[in-house]
Amino acid sequence: MVETLQVERLLVNYKTLEEFKRFKEYGNQELSMLEDLQSNIVENDSESPFFGIYYGNALVARMSLYRVGAKYDQYFNPPQDYHELWKLEVLPDYRGQGYGKALVDFAKSYDLPIKTNPRINSHGFWEKMGFQKAHYEMERDLGENPLIWMPAGVEEKETGENPE
Amino acid sequence: MVETLQVERLLVNYKTLEEFKRFKEYGNQELSMLEDLQSNIVENDSESPFFGIYYGNALVARMSLYRVGAKYDQYFNPPQDYHELWKLEVLPDYRGQGYGKALVDFAKSYDLPIKTNPRINSHGFWEKMGFQKAHYEMERDLGENPLIWMPAGVEEKETGENPE
Repeated sequence: MVETLQVERLLVNYKTLEEFKRFKEYGNQELSMLEDLQSNIVENDSESPFFGIYYGNALVARMSLYRVGAKYDQYFNPPQDYHELWKLEVLPDYRGQGYGKALVDFAKSYDLPIKTNPRINSHGFWEKMGFQKAHYEMERDLGENPLIWMPAGVEEKETGENPE
Repeated sequence: MVETLQVERLLVNYKTLEEFKRFKEYGNQELSMLEDLQSNIVENDSESPFFGIYYGNALVARMSLYRVGAKYDQYFNPPQDYHELWKLEVLPDYRGQGYGKALVDFAKSYDLPIKTNPRINSHGFWEKMGFQKAHYEMERDLGENPLIWMPAGVEEKETGENPE
């Protein structure tokens, strides 16, 4: 086990974007950030939605986190701001050492509910982290398998309500 | 190549739900349908959001399709009803024989735009089907890598607009 794991907000710069290429879930989001940087739409070293953990100089774990406004909350009761968490990933050589848990604990530290759409085969991890399946509603969830975590005093929105 | 591929709307019943277990993307949606059937919330043989192709008596390809109302359209110009397509999957022994294309052609036949969030490594297929990457907008797309298809007269919503 690693003794202390420092979670940092990642800045948009060429070094970070290069490091992102080592992660499996590299997609449109990263390409869009790169284009925005290249065309000066975003400044170098501006804040990104990613948080990560470094081992020495190398980024070895990351996640993306976005605060959704209460107005758009379709998952929790009472409706409130919550975090959408995605692209949680630890590089293969660093798994099983608490990096994933450190990132999720960081997300929980805001004391807001969290929603994620897990990748296949990661349910054991999310269960250990205290996440539970949201009741599936097709009009809301479409192709997702949403998992949710709630701080004290929050519950899942009642099922069968119209999600609109 | 198969000569004629008949795309059918799948009905919610125990046979269909048993067949769904052979598909890799079996998740909360299928479990929810099973529970609704078991508790008589939905009637046997009611319509599902799934369409599929049978080879003899066996379901060998499927997709889910849901019509999103123009009010919720954040992708197209002018804003309009469109289809969200997910869980497009052909069983391994039946790949490369046109089943996937037949399902996508069926979705296109409504002459409405289509949006999908493809699985990793399927971009070659979607490109052949005429889909293109939507410009990524974090507040809208979060962890998705949206691909879109548009019939004549429709274009992608201009980027940089506020998605709210």
